[in-house]
Amino acid sequence: MQLERIRNSSLHEKVMSAAQASEFIKDGMTVGMSGFTRAGEAKAVPKALAERCKQQPIKINLMTGASLGNDLDKILTESGSLARRMPFQVDTTLRKAINNGEVMFIDQHLSEMVEQLRNHQLARPDVAIIEAIAITEEGHIVPTTSVGNSASFAVFAEKVIVEINTLHSDKLEGLHDIYIPSYRPTRTPLPLVQVDDRIGSTAIPIPAEKIAGIVFTSTPDSYSTVSDPDAETASIARHLVNFLKDEMAQGRLPNNLGPLQAGIGNIANAVMMGLLDSDFDDLTMYSEVLQDSTFDLIDAGKLRFASGCSVILSERMNAKVFDHIEDYKDKLVLRPQEMSNHPEIVRRLGIIAINTALEFDLYGNVNSTHVCGTKMMNGIGGSGDFARNANMSIFVTKSIAKDGAISSVVPMVSHVDHTEHDVDILVTDQGLADLRGLAPRERAVRVIQNCVHPDYRNQLMDYFERACARGGHTPHLIEEAYRWHVNLQTHGTMKLAN
Amino acid sequence: MQLERIRNSSLHEKVMSAAQASEFIKDGMTVGMSGFTRAGEAKAVPKALAERCKQQPIKINLMTGASLGNDLDKILTESGSLARRMPFQVDTTLRKAINNGEVMFIDQHLSEMVEQLRNHQLARPDVAIIEAIAITEEGHIVPTTSVGNSASFAVFAEKVIVEINTLHSDKLEGLHDIYIPSYRPTRTPLPLVQVDDRIGSTAIPIPAEKIAGIVFTSTPDSYSTVSDPDAETASIARHLVNFLKDEMAQGRLPNNLGPLQAGIGNIANAVMMGLLDSDFDDLTMYSEVLQDSTFDLIDAGKLRFASGCSVILSERMNAKVFDHIEDYKDKLVLRPQEMSNHPEIVRRLGIIAINTALEFDLYGNVNSTHVCGTKMMNGIGGSGDFARNANMSIFVTKSIAKDGAISSVVPMVSHVDHTEHDVDILVTDQGLADLRGLAPRERAVRVIQNCVHPDYRNQLMDYFERACARGGHTPHLIEEAYRWHVNLQTHGTMKLAN
Ligand SMILES: CC(C)(COP(=O)(O)OP(=O)(O)OC[C@H]1O[C@@H](n2cnc3c(N)ncnc32)[C@H](O)[C@@H]1OP(=O)(O)O)[C@@H](O)C(=O)NCCC(=O)NCCS
Ligand SMILES: CC(C)(COP(=O)(O)OP(=O)(O)OC[C@H]1O[C@@H](n2cnc3c(N)ncnc32)[C@H](O)[C@@H]1OP(=O)(O)O)[C@@H](O)C(=O)NCCC(=O)NCCS
Repeated sequence: MQLERIRNSSLHEKVMSAAQASEFIKDGMTVGMSGFTRAGEAKAVPKALAERCKQQPIKINLMTGASLGNDLDKILTESGSLARRMPFQVDTTLRKAINNGEVMFIDQHLSEMVEQLRNHQLARPDVAIIEAIAITEEGHIVPTTSVGNSASFAVFAEKVIVEINTLHSDKLEGLHDIYIPSYRPTRTPLPLVQVDDRIGSTAIPIPAEKIAGIVFTSTPDSYSTVSDPDAETASIARHLVNFLKDEMAQGRLPNNLGPLQAGIGNIANAVMMGLLDSDFDDLTMYSEVLQDSTFDLIDAGKLRFASGCSVILSERMNAKVFDHIEDYKDKLVLRPQEMSNHPEIVRRLGIIAINTALEFDLYGNVNSTHVCGTKMMNGIGGSGDFARNANMSIFVTKSIAKDGAISSVVPMVSHVDHTEHDVDILVTDQGLADLRGLAPRERAVRVIQNCVHPDYRNQLMDYFERACARGGHTPHLIEEAYRWHVNLQTHGTMKLAN
Repeated sequence: MQLERIRNSSLHEKVMSAAQASEFIKDGMTVGMSGFTRAGEAKAVPKALAERCKQQPIKINLMTGASLGNDLDKILTESGSLARRMPFQVDTTLRKAINNGEVMFIDQHLSEMVEQLRNHQLARPDVAIIEAIAITEEGHIVPTTSVGNSASFAVFAEKVIVEINTLHSDKLEGLHDIYIPSYRPTRTPLPLVQVDDRIGSTAIPIPAEKIAGIVFTSTPDSYSTVSDPDAETASIARHLVNFLKDEMAQGRLPNNLGPLQAGIGNIANAVMMGLLDSDFDDLTMYSEVLQDSTFDLIDAGKLRFASGCSVILSERMNAKVFDHIEDYKDKLVLRPQEMSNHPEIVRRLGIIAINTALEFDLYGNVNSTHVCGTKMMNGIGGSGDFARNANMSIFVTKSIAKDGAISSVVPMVSHVDHTEHDVDILVTDQGLADLRGLAPRERAVRVIQNCVHPDYRNQLMDYFERACARGGHTPHLIEEAYRWHVNLQTHGTMKLAN
C-alpha cells in the first residue's frame, strides 16, 4: 500500500526508520528542510535528530522554506541542536534562544536564499529532508502542502531524505509547479505572465540515486492559529476595502484590482476576509502563504485563482479543502518561494501587496520584525520581496498594542524593514493614509490625522511640530526619537508623563 | 543648417524662442524634464521660465530623470518656481530649500517613477521638455547625453517641447535604446538578457503633433565635479579589488565578475578607477551613470561594454569621448532609467552593485541620504534599485568625515535607506566586512574589526558589548542609539567625552 507511493521500485530498499535516516546528519552539517509557514515540513527525521541529541551533542545549520509546524523549532531548540537557523521562524522557544544570542538567526528576504546558495554565497545543504506525497518513476519528489525551498535544497544537497506522508491524499499530485530559473550568465526571462501560468514540472527533478533514505509518516500539519477578525481588524479591512473601491472608481486599479498578496498572521487574514462582503469579483492572488480567507473567497465565488507557496488552514477549513482537493485543483497552484516572491514576477504582474507592521512612523517607515529595535519577533519573511516591487504596497496594523501601552504609530520606528520608499498606504483601525507622491512633512500630517490612536495623537503632533521647528527634509528630534520606546521600557507605557 | 536637425519638415514652423516655449507652462502644472545626473537636461526653457517668474509667480511640480546641471535647480529654486520636486537632486541651494520645508521633495527609487505615472499614482506631466540631438522624419525625439525618464514623460505629457542642442554631434544618434515595457495586465518579460542587447528604438516614439515647440540651444552639459582618488578612496578600492579577486579565485564570481554597477560621486568613481590596475578584463557595466572611470576602463581595454542611463564627464574626458563618439558607439548604450535600474534585469544579470553610504551601522544598515537623520543630502537615487536585486550588494564609504568629527560607522544609522537584508559587503579605507550569511551579532564583530576608524573602535566596541549584555537578536541600547549623533550636534564631534 505505502510502497505504491514510491513508484520507482529500485528505491523501495531505501525505506528506513526516522532514527536510521537521521544518522545521515552529522555534527556541523547544513540541513535543508521542507516546510513553509508551518505547512509541509518534514516531521519524523528532525524529531529523531532531536532524540539523538540527547545521547551525543549535534549542532546543525538549519535552513527551511520558512517557519515549521508541529513544534519542531521548539523541539530542535530544546535539544540544543540548532547552531544556526534561517530564513524565518515563528516559534516562542526558538525566538527566546535567538534573542539570547544562543541560536544565530539569519533573517532574510525569502526570494533570495536559493539565489545565494546557487552562487555559493551561502554553504549548500549537505542533507535535504523533504516531505512528499510520492516519489515518481524517475525518482522525482512530489511535495505536500508547501514547496518553499525544497526543490533547490534537493538539487544542491549531497543526500536527500524523503518523508512520505501518507496522511495526504495522492490527489495532491499536480498541484505544484516546480520551476528553477536558468543559471547566470545565461539566465532567460521567467516565462510566467499570468497568475495561473504553469511553467515547470509537478515534481522536484533530481536523480533517483541522490535519495539516500525514505521514511513513512502520517502526522498532520499543524492547524492554523489564526483567530477570527475582531473589531479592530474588521475596521482595518473596512478602511482598506473602501480605499480599493475608490481607486477602482478613479480608474487607478482595474476592476479585479490586480493580483493580491496578503501576508501572514491575524491581521492580513482579517483584511482578506473583508473582501468577502465587497463587490469585487474575478479576484486573483499571487501570494506566498494561502490562509483560510483564500478558500473562503474561492468558495464565495469571488476569487478565481490563487498562486501560493504553501497552504496553512484551520482544522475546519483543512478538512474541507484537502478532502475535496479535486474541487480546488484548477484554482490553485503551489510554487517554490523563489517564484512566488520573485521581484521579476511581482513587478510584472503589478501586485497589490498587503503586509503587517509591528509599528510604523510619521514618515512611513515600517518595522515588521524587532520589538523595541532589538527583540526579534518572526522575521521579514517575504514582505520585502512584495513591498519593494508591488504596484501598491500596503501595510496594516492595529493602532495600539498591549491594551494601549504601545502605540504602533511612533515618531521613529526602532528598526526599519521597509523604508518610506517602499510604503504607499498605511492602515490602522483608525483610518488610512495614502502616502503616494507625498514629501515626508506631508506624509506625517496624513499619518497623524488618519492612523494614530486618539490617546497618542497629541503626543505625536507635539513631536512633529517641535521637529519641524528645528527643520530638515525629514524633521526629527534625534535625542527624543526613541523616547516613547524608552518610556515603555522604563515605565511600561509609551504614554509620556508630561 | 540647424533645421536639418528637424527631419520632419512639417515641424519647422514649431521653432520658437525659449521664452515663447516657456509660455506653455502655466502655474500649477506638472513638468517632466530630461536630465539625469547633470547630463542631458533641457537648458533654455527652464531658464526662461525662471525669468518669467520674476514678473509673475508660477509654481510648478518638477519631475526629472535625476539631478540637473547648469545650476538649473539653483536657478529654479531662487526664482521661487519649484513647489514640488522629484525624484533626485544634488544642488546646494535646492537642498537648503528642501531642508527648510520650502520645496516638497519626493525622494524615490529611480526605476519606479514612470511605473507610478503609468498607473496614475502620480499626476502625469502636462508638459515635457526634452533635450535632443534631432527630431526624426516620424517626429521621434533623439535624446542627448541622458535618457532618464524622457521617453515616458514625452509619452504621457499633453504637450512636448524639444530643445535641440546643436553643440552635440548628430553622430550620437544610435547610442540610445528606448524600450517601454508593455502595460499591465498583459505585460510580457523584458527581452534583455545581455548587457549589450538592444531591444528598443533609437528615438522616443511620439506622434509629431504632440510637439508644441522646438527651441535651438548650444549650451554644454556641466562638467563632472568628481575629484581624483585620494589616499582613503584608493584604499577602499584596494580592499574591494582584493576581495573581488578572492571571490573569483574561490569560484563564487566568474572571471569577468559579472556586470558592474557603480554609484554616483567621488568614492564610487575612485573604486572603479581601482579596477584599472587589476588583472580583471572583459569587464562589463550595467549601471546608471557612466563617469570618467568607465571610459578610462574602456580605453585601457579592460571594459568591453557599458550600459547606462547617462554620461557625465570631466572637461578632459568629455572632449575625448564626444569628439570620437564613433570609437565608443559599439561599446555603449544609453537606456531609460526604468530599464537601466529595472529589478527584473538587475536580478537576471546578477549585477555587482557598488554604492556609497553616508553612514552604516554595526548591523549593516545603510544611510545614503539623511545627515543626522533629518537633513537631505541628495536622495536614494538608484541605489535601492540595485542593492535590493543585485547578486552582490556592496556599500563603500570613508571611515570618517569632517576631519574625524564624524564616524561613518555608528551604533545605529540615523536613517535607513538600505536595510541589513540588502547589504552584503561593507568597505571603508580601514578594510572590508563580508556580512553574507551572518547573524547580526556576527556582523557587528566584523564591522568593528574591519571597518571602523581606530579613533572610534573602542567606543563602538563598548556600545556593542553593553548592548549584548542586555540581549536581543539585534542588540541595542535604545536610549543611547543616537548618542553619537546628539554629541555631534551639541559638541561638534561624535567622540564621546568619557
Ligand atoms: C508583524 C506580525 C508579527 C503581526 O502578526 P499578526 O498576527 O498579524 O498581529 P497581532 O496583532 O496578532 O500581533 C502579534 C503580536 O505582536 C504584538 N505587537 C503588535 N504591535 C506591536 C508593537 N508595536 N510593539 C510590540 N509588540 C507588538 C501584539 O501584541 C501581539 O503580541 P502577542 O503575540 O503577545 O499577543 C506578522 O505579520 C509578521 O511576522 N510579519 C513579518 C513577516 C511578514 O510580513 N511575512 C509576510 C510576507 S508574505
Ligand atoms: C552618499 C553620497 C552623498 C556620497 O558622495 P561622494 O561624493 O561619493 O562622497 P564624499 O565623501 O565626497 O561625501 C560627500 C559629502 O558628505 C559628507 N559626509 C560623508 N559622510 C558623512 C556622514 N556620515 N555624516 C555627514 N556628512 C557626511 C562629506 O564630508 C562630504 O561633505 P562635503 O560635500 O561638505 O565635502 C552620494 O554617493 C549619494 O548621494 N548617494 C546616494 C544616491 C546614490 O547612491 N546614487 C547612486 C545610484 S546609481
